Amino acid sequence: MNFLEERILKDGIVKEGNVLKVDSFLNHQMDVNLLDEIGKEFHRRFADLNITKVLTIEASGIAIAYAVARCFNVPMVFAKKTQSINIDGDMYTTEVESFTHKNRNQVIVSKRFLSSEDKLLIVDDFLANGCALQGLLSIAELSGASVEGIGIAIEKGFQYGGRSIRNLGYRLESLAIVESMDAATQTIVFREQ
Amino acid sequence: MNFLEERILKDGIVKEGNVLKVDSFLNHQMDVNLLDEIGKEFHRRFADLNITKVLTIEASGIAIAYAVARCFNVPMVFAKKTQSINIDGDMYTTEVESFTHKNRNQVIVSKRFLSSEDKLLIVDDFLANGCALQGLLSIAELSGASVEGIGIAIEKGFQYGGRSIRNLGYRLESLAIVESMDAATQTIVFREQ
Repeated sequence: MNFLEERILKDGIVKEGNVLKVDSFLNHQMDVNLLDEIGKEFHRRFADLNITKVLTIEASGIAIAYAVARCFNVPMVFAKKTQSINIDGDMYTTEVESFTHKNRNQVIVSKRFLSSEDKLLIVDDFLANGCALQGLLSIAELSGASVEGIGIAIEKGFQYGGRSIRNLGYRLESLAIVESMDAATQTIVFREQ
Repeated sequence: MNFLEERILKDGIVKEGNVLKVDSFLNHQMDVNLLDEIGKEFHRRFADLNITKVLTIEASGIAIAYAVARCFNVPMVFAKKTQSINIDGDMYTTEVESFTHKNRNQVIVSKRFLSSEDKLLIVDDFLANGCALQGLLSIAELSGASVEGIGIAIEKGFQYGGRSIRNLGYRLESLAIVESMDAATQTIVFREQ
């Protein structure tokens, strides 16, 4: 079991409806030492790639993206969510659905910060149905940048996001893949990797 | 002139309507080495305080808060913005107006992550009218935590946020205070500190 899986077992809380709360250390209150470790681990796993930028989406991806980007010593870019429909022409734009908030947002990245020269590592804290990640992949495609790898802290293995993105041929690595969880017993089972 | 003022002169863009765009290095694309330097500088300035947590607000405050919190080796907490009106009882809640987006948001922090034991350093990327900061101060007050210091990357000195918060007696330090700026000539004048 790796450091993140251990931490999830220690401090994660399983709620009804397949909700895993990790807000005491990963996406509301944040443990800076854990973030540093996550950054180092993704750097170790993707060190063979010539990454030029780390891309994520606001808000909770930002800290992880920074942790990773500082290990690669490259800039990080975060896509912004907006509900405004008047996006000016210097933005790459796509639309994503939010599983948590049950709404749709425009996701935007300035054209100045992604180009066909870029080799991207996309990172995020969670992967469930993959809506946010599909949005980032669309943005990358619009820019012509190549997506060299995708690093996720926690993947819900029983939802289809991870499978569908791996099926597209992307190199996707998740530090912890939750195979099943149970709110009544607070049991969390991880996929063997 | 310090490292941040130099960077603003080099890469900041002044737009009509007193808008200073620093999105190439601070709040859309982020320079990780600059963030590291900002973290170290705030740690140096507030090293005399016995900080237990760093508090900020999503989204662009998150990276700076992490940079600072890792220097203090304490957790960071980011307040979330939400438009939902059904906030459950375990949240500290306040309402803030957004200068940029011209709307109002609920700002929330889980009660589990702030208490009267905490000595807070509040950080954010920008201070203009101070609406977001007033929201964080309200949240801190609701929790009983003491606000030991406030660290801002860029303050618009010609707007009233900084003055009103200093008048309340808070120890507020901004790395760069813009006294005036001009879109036609791309001139930026900083306050001598």
